[in-house]
Amino acid sequence: MTIQEIREYLGRFFDSVELAGNGDVEISGPAKIETAHQGQVSFIANEKYIRFLAVTEASLVIVHRSMCVDEFIDQRSFIKVGDPYSAFVFLLQKFAPPRTIAAKGIAPTAVIGEGVSVGEGVSIGEYAVIGDRCSIGSNVVIGAHTVLFQDVSIGADSILFPHVTCYNGTVVGCRVVMHSGCVIGADGFGFAPQSDGSYVKIPQMGIVEIGDDVEIGANATIDRATLGSTVIGRGAKIDNLVQVAHNCRIGEDTVIAAQAGISGSVTIGRQCMIGGQAGFAGHLELADRINVAAQAGISKSFLQSGISLRGYPAQPMRDQLKHEAMLRNLGAMKEKLDRLESELKKLKEG
Amino acid sequence: MTIQEIREYLGRFFDSVELAGNGDVEISGPAKIETAHQGQVSFIANEKYIRFLAVTEASLVIVHRSMCVDEFIDQRSFIKVGDPYSAFVFLLQKFAPPRTIAAKGIAPTAVIGEGVSVGEGVSIGEYAVIGDRCSIGSNVVIGAHTVLFQDVSIGADSILFPHVTCYNGTVVGCRVVMHSGCVIGADGFGFAPQSDGSYVKIPQMGIVEIGDDVEIGANATIDRATLGSTVIGRGAKIDNLVQVAHNCRIGEDTVIAAQAGISGSVTIGRQCMIGGQAGFAGHLELADRINVAAQAGISKSFLQSGISLRGYPAQPMRDQLKHEAMLRNLGAMKEKLDRLESELKKLKEG
Amino acid sequence: MTIQEIREYLGRFFDSVELAGNGDVEISGPAKIETAHQGQVSFIANEKYIRFLAVTEASLVIVHRSMCVDEFIDQRSFIKVGDPYSAFVFLLQKFAPPRTIAAKGIAPTAVIGEGVSVGEGVSIGEYAVIGDRCSIGSNVVIGAHTVLFQDVSIGADSILFPHVTCYNGTVVGCRVVMHSGCVIGADGFGFAPQSDGSYVKIPQMGIVEIGDDVEIGANATIDRATLGSTVIGRGAKIDNLVQVAHNCRIGEDTVIAAQAGISGSVTIGRQCMIGGQAGFAGHLELADRINVAAQAGISKSFLQSGISLRGYPAQPMRDQLKHEAMLRNLGAMKEKLDRLESELKKLKEG
Repeated sequence: MTIQEIREYLGRFFDSVELAGNGDVEISGPAKIETAHQGQVSFIANEKYIRFLAVTEASLVIVHRSMCVDEFIDQRSFIKVGDPYSAFVFLLQKFAPPRTIAAKGIAPTAVIGEGVSVGEGVSIGEYAVIGDRCSIGSNVVIGAHTVLFQDVSIGADSILFPHVTCYNGTVVGCRVVMHSGCVIGADGFGFAPQSDGSYVKIPQMGIVEIGDDVEIGANATIDRATLGSTVIGRGAKIDNLVQVAHNCRIGEDTVIAAQAGISGSVTIGRQCMIGGQAGFAGHLELADRINVAAQAGISKSFLQSGISLRGYPAQPMRDQLKHEAMLRNLGAMKEKLDRLESELKKLKEG
Repeated sequence: MTIQEIREYLGRFFDSVELAGNGDVEISGPAKIETAHQGQVSFIANEKYIRFLAVTEASLVIVHRSMCVDEFIDQRSFIKVGDPYSAFVFLLQKFAPPRTIAAKGIAPTAVIGEGVSVGEGVSIGEYAVIGDRCSIGSNVVIGAHTVLFQDVSIGADSILFPHVTCYNGTVVGCRVVMHSGCVIGADGFGFAPQSDGSYVKIPQMGIVEIGDDVEIGANATIDRATLGSTVIGRGAKIDNLVQVAHNCRIGEDTVIAAQAGISGSVTIGRQCMIGGQAGFAGHLELADRINVAAQAGISKSFLQSGISLRGYPAQPMRDQLKHEAMLRNLGAMKEKLDRLESELKKLKEG
Repeated sequence: MTIQEIREYLGRFFDSVELAGNGDVEISGPAKIETAHQGQVSFIANEKYIRFLAVTEASLVIVHRSMCVDEFIDQRSFIKVGDPYSAFVFLLQKFAPPRTIAAKGIAPTAVIGEGVSVGEGVSIGEYAVIGDRCSIGSNVVIGAHTVLFQDVSIGADSILFPHVTCYNGTVVGCRVVMHSGCVIGADGFGFAPQSDGSYVKIPQMGIVEIGDDVEIGANATIDRATLGSTVIGRGAKIDNLVQVAHNCRIGEDTVIAAQAGISGSVTIGRQCMIGGQAGFAGHLELADRINVAAQAGISKSFLQSGISLRGYPAQPMRDQLKHEAMLRNLGAMKEKLDRLESELKKLKEG
C-alpha cells in the first residue's frame, strides 16, 4: 500500500487529509514511533513523542494538521489530519492480518439444538454447543467450545471467541465481541436469609441483554437479572475479569476497566469511564459521563453528570484531592500544634 | 395457579398464611412491585416500597402480617406472612421455568473414564469429560464441556454448569451449584524461594472439599491444599470471581461477595458476610458471624464473633467510623489550629 | 523410602545433609508437623513451630543444621540441612503422586490443525483444539478442552491444564504451567474515542510471549500487545485471576499474587513481589526486587530497586507507615488542640 493509497483510505474517515512529502513510497505496516523501521508507518498524537520526529526511521508519520514538519520532509513523508491517533487506528484495521476464530460454516463436531436459526455466512467452531431455539445472525463467528444454552439470540456480525458461555435467554446485539472465558447470564447472587442462619436460593428468572457494538473481555462475568434484564448498553466496553451483578444497567458507550465490580441493581449512565478494580455498592445510580478512578469505592449515588470520583468512600475529585492534600499536610499540622503548645507554655510561665 | 393455591403452597413454609381478598383469581407469575401487571403476584418487604401498595397493578401482593391493607382489598388481594420476602422467593421457585442444563442421560459425546460410578437420574452434557474413578451421585446434572479429573466425587442433586473444571480428588457435597468457568482444586500458589532469586514449585498434594448446599459463582477459583484440604463449609455461598487460596477453611453458611480474595490458610467462621473485593492476608482467622465491608483489607485475626469490620487495615466498625469522622473533620481541625496560632500571636504581641 | 534414602535424595540438592538418629525407618509420606503421624516426615523452618519438636508423632523431622535435637533422637530421627523448608519441598516432589492431566498420545477427539508440529512424548487431551501451524514441544501435556489458535508455540515439558485458551501467535517457553481457565493473548483493551462519544476498536496485532518456568494461575488473563509483545519473563509466577494488560513486561522471577491488576504498558522489574489485589496505573515502571503490599495502588513509577511500597496512592513503606501512624494519632492531636484552645482561652481571660 503506497502512502498515496493510505491518504485515500483515510479520506473515508476525515474531511481533510494532507500529504507532505513523497506519496509513492510503499508502506509495509504500522509500528510504534520509537521502534519503527523504514517502510513502516507510525504516528504522533502526544507532545512527549515529538522528539521522535527527527530520529524515527518510519517512512510515514501521521501527525496533527497543526504540526510543522517542513524540516523533516526530506527524510520521510507525513500525513496531516485532525485526529492522528484515530487515523492510525484506522490504518491498524487496514493492516491487521485476518484472524481465523472458526472456519467458515458449521464444524462437524458442533452440536446444534432443535429449532436453531442460523443466518448467512455463519462460522461455528469445533465442539461448540448451541442450545435449542437459539438464533444466530448472519456472519456471526462462534469459536470452538463456546456454549449457548437454549433461547440465546446473537445479532449479526458478532464474534464469540472460544470458551464463551451464554446462559439461557441471553440476547446479544450486532457486532458484539465476547472474549474467551466470559460468562454471560449466570445466576445473580441472591439468597434469602432464614432464621436458622442458612439461605434459600432466590431463583434468577431474568436474562442479560447486550446492545450492539459491545465488547466484553476475557473471563468477565455478567449475571442475569432476578426478574427482568441486566442491560449492557450499546457500545459499552467491558474489560477482563469485570463483574456486573444482577439487574445492573450499564449505559451506552460506557467503558469499564479490568477487575471493576458492579454490585446488584446499579445503574450507570452513558459515556462513563470506570477505572480498574473500582467497586460499587448495590442499588445506586451514576449520571452520564462520570469518571471513576481506579480502585475507588462508590458507596452512594452521584447524579450530576460529567464529574470525576475518587477515593474510598469516593467523592468528587476536587473534594478528594483537597482531602488528600490535607492528609499529606498532617505532619506539618502536627509540628505547628507542638510549636503552639510550647509557645503557650512559655507564655503561661512567662 | 390461583391465589388460594398460592396460599396453600406457602402453608408448607409458614405456620400462618392469611388471605385478604379474593382467592379465586388466577396468577400467571411473579413481578417487581413497580412493574407488575394484572394477574401477577408481587411483594412488599421494605418500608420504602409501601407507596406502591396503592398504585401497583399486581393482583396479589404478599405483605407482612402486621400490615393493614383493608383499604386496598377491593382492588387486589393480599397474603400476609411473617416473612414476605422469603414467601416471594418460594413463589419464584414455584414459577421458575425449568432450565435444561443437560439432557437426561449421558450425552454420546461425553467421555467417561474407567471405574466411574454414576447414580440414578444423572444428566451429563455434550463433551463433558469425567476422569477415572469419579463418583457421580444420583440426579446430578453436569453441563456440556465440564471437566472432572480423576477421583472426583459429586454428591446427589448437585448441578455443575457448563465449563466447570474440578481437579483430581475434589470432593463435592449434595445440592451444590457450580457456575460456568469456576475452577476447583487448581494448585495453590506455593513456591519456595531459592538463593539465586528463582523459585521451586511446592507440590500441592491436598484437595478441595465442598460441603452440601454450597453455591459457587462463575469464574471463581478455589485452590487445593498443599497438604490436607481446602474446605468450603456446608451452605456457604461464593460469588463470581472470588479467589479462595490453598488451605483456607470457609465456615458454614458464610457468604462471600464477588471478587473478594482469601489468602492462603485463612479460617473464616460460620455465617460471616464478606463484602465484594475485600481482601485477606494469609494465615489469619475470623470468628463466626463477622461482617466484612466491601473493599476492606483484613490484616490480622478477629476472634470476637458478631462484629463488623471495615477499612484498610480493617478495624471494628465503631473504631473505623470514628476514624473516618475524624478524617472528615480534618479541615475544621486545621482551621482551629490556624485560629489558635493567630490568637497566640496577638497575645504575645499584645 | 527409608530415612537413609531420603538423606541420599536430599544430597542431590544440598552440600551438607546430616542424619541424627535411626536411618532405617520407613517413611510413608510427608505431613504438617502438627498433624504428622508415625511413619511420616515433617519439617520445622520457623521458630514458632519449635514447640512441636517435643510432641510431634513424625518419625523424621527436617530441621536447620544449627538446631540442637539431641534430647529428642530417642523418639524420632532428624535430618539437618541449611534450608529445611526447601528440603521438605523437594521431598514433597518426591512423594507427590502422579497426576494424569491427559493420557499419553493424542486423544482421538482432539482436533489438530494443518501444519502442526508435535514433539516426542506429547499428550493431548480429549476435545483439545490445536490451530494450524502450532508447534508443540516434546513432552508437553495439553489438557482436555484446551484451545490453541493458529501459530501458537509451546516449549518442551510445559503443562497446559484443561480449559486453557491461547490466542493466535502466543509463544510459550519450556516447563511452563498454565492452569485451567487462563486466557492468554485476548485483545488488549484499546478503543479510540470518537467525537460522538463512541469508540473505535484498536486492532490488537501483537502477541504474548511467556518465558521458561513461568506458572500462570486459574482464570488469569494476559492480553496480547497492540503492536509487539506482552512479555512474561522467565520464572515469573502469576496467581489466579490476575490481569496483565497489553504491552506489559513482567520481569524474571517476579511473583504476582491473586487478583492483582497490571494496566497497559507497565514494566515490572525482576524478582518483584506483587501482593494480592494490588493495582497499577498504566505506562509506569517498577525497578527490580520491589515489594508491593496487597491492595496497594501504584500510581507512578518507582525506579529504586529493593524498596517496599504500600498504600493508596502507594509510597515507600517507611513513609507510608509514618503516615499511617500519624493517622492513628489523629485523636491525640485533636485532644491536644482542644486543650490548647481552652488554655489559651483561660490565658486571654486571665
